[in-house]
Amino acid sequence: MEFTFLGTSAGTPTRSRNVTGLALCHTGPKPWYLIDCGEGTQHQLMRTRYSVMQLRAVFITHIHGDHIFGLPGLLTSASMLGRTEPLDIIAPEQVRRFINATIENSDSSLSYPLNFIDSEAPDFYWQDQHVAVTNIALSHRVPCRAYVFTERNLERQLNQGKLMADGIVAGPQWGDLQKGRDVLLDDGRLLRSDDYTHQYRTARKMIVGGDNDTPDLLQEACKGAHLLIHEATYTQDVADRVGPWPQHSSAQQVARFAHSAGLPNLVLTHFSSRYQSAPGGSPHINQLAAEALQHYKGHLFLARDFDTYRLEKDFRLHRLNGH
Amino acid sequence: MEFTFLGTSAGTPTRSRNVTGLALCHTGPKPWYLIDCGEGTQHQLMRTRYSVMQLRAVFITHIHGDHIFGLPGLLTSASMLGRTEPLDIIAPEQVRRFINATIENSDSSLSYPLNFIDSEAPDFYWQDQHVAVTNIALSHRVPCRAYVFTERNLERQLNQGKLMADGIVAGPQWGDLQKGRDVLLDDGRLLRSDDYTHQYRTARKMIVGGDNDTPDLLQEACKGAHLLIHEATYTQDVADRVGPWPQHSSAQQVARFAHSAGLPNLVLTHFSSRYQSAPGGSPHINQLAAEALQHYKGHLFLARDFDTYRLEKDFRLHRLNGH
Repeated sequence: MEFTFLGTSAGTPTRSRNVTGLALCHTGPKPWYLIDCGEGTQHQLMRTRYSVMQLRAVFITHIHGDHIFGLPGLLTSASMLGRTEPLDIIAPEQVRRFINATIENSDSSLSYPLNFIDSEAPDFYWQDQHVAVTNIALSHRVPCRAYVFTERNLERQLNQGKLMADGIVAGPQWGDLQKGRDVLLDDGRLLRSDDYTHQYRTARKMIVGGDNDTPDLLQEACKGAHLLIHEATYTQDVADRVGPWPQHSSAQQVARFAHSAGLPNLVLTHFSSRYQSAPGGSPHINQLAAEALQHYKGHLFLARDFDTYRLEKDFRLHRLNGH
Repeated sequence: MEFTFLGTSAGTPTRSRNVTGLALCHTGPKPWYLIDCGEGTQHQLMRTRYSVMQLRAVFITHIHGDHIFGLPGLLTSASMLGRTEPLDIIAPEQVRRFINATIENSDSSLSYPLNFIDSEAPDFYWQDQHVAVTNIALSHRVPCRAYVFTERNLERQLNQGKLMADGIVAGPQWGDLQKGRDVLLDDGRLLRSDDYTHQYRTARKMIVGGDNDTPDLLQEACKGAHLLIHEATYTQDVADRVGPWPQHSSAQQVARFAHSAGLPNLVLTHFSSRYQSAPGGSPHINQLAAEALQHYKGHLFLARDFDTYRLEKDFRLHRLNGH
């Protein structure tokens, strides 16, 4: 599972950080998934290997502008490129109204269908051949969700001893069973893939949070999760000065939660535009890392635009090449 | 009068050109005017000297997405920065609906008032202390306008001989008269500025076109104009291949028109994303310049993102530093 940050700034863009967007894929960039779509997401994508033509679904955490204002441009550009594949938009109902009003008032039309799926539905569940997605209600100024991505259809290993013992000779059926398909033999026997194969590893599970002032809401979802990507808008002292109104998390809060949940990997993102990345800048972005490291002993990363990560099958998280 | 291109690509952004936006000012960047606002305009502004805090008015030529999708982010970012000054939005009625639907469905609110002014009203006229603005209906797939900017309140020269002959001694009144203000003397005499001063130069006049397949519509407006900024989406051969549907102009069409209108300065912009700027790229952007030069003998420029121009008081057009 690989993902690339398209934006890591909260509220407004800075010269080095765009507003929120995350590109995620399971095995190569076809298909891929977009989580949130701040203004300029289509511009950022031009500097990655992801194309709107192969985008399978967009998951929106909540309706704030820095998470959705890139949708109109992304959707209409895909149309100008001639996309015909349907696109799933998983989002609160207001995003459907925003998109429809935008299309209606800008003389736009799309060359492909949009399937709107209500992210706030109590029974929300989405899947394709690679991933299953559920979500968790967070605490923010508007309804907001974290998305939980769990991989599906893991590789299977054939139990060759059992196959041979049952007199099933090597052939195309073995391949079908290994791919998880049940097989009907000419003699009428039905062979169940589950009886002749086993999955030799555990599915990777990662959580992509939205804006949230109560990381503890993710406690249950984090059981067995290998990675959490969560906002850390401020250091604790700034959060205290700003007060509770914005309903964001501090680095300390998230780090404490991740530690108590036993999460092996934590990536912080969605930093207030006040934090500087340039050497000597103040307040410096490293203050967020320093604060988090005091409370979290797992593998910690601070996201930067265009940084690409891979969550390996053994659950280690690597940062690959950046921009 | 100075202006900076924030985007020079038609329809979709490219890696080196954003979609349409132009920053214009009369005397320094406070106040300034924005003509069109494609997605990413606020990002481009971060690389110029223009701030949304000093923006006086936004002029929208037409409702297509590549000219308006940057408005939601620009307006809400100005609010997050604490703007309180009212902002004029001169645009077709649908832009008001687009902005209102966006604000409503994204839990946004603005810290300052928006004044929507219908750009399609038959008696459209706008002014501040620096410029007077009228507009001209163009021919495109949707109603579209060119904006004509003419400077106001030109410097006046005192007729000192007449002042002294009339016994008006040098003092603060001279300053008032020179600034165009009439003065009431203690003895009851009313001195009219127009009687004691004269404007020693002609007002600069520049036209910023929108999308348009019929440059001739600007014939009347171009009389006495010193500069036209106009789209040239294609070379003529590409325009012929694409056919009339998009309702854009070719470089040849605009150049011929500018020549017949006797325009001293012409800047082409809004180039199809197929045109490449890198050496060796094909089709190359220089094809547009080469075509225009065959038909236009005035001062021709091809716009690039972040290029800044100054229209001097003697009506010469200079390209200043770029990015």
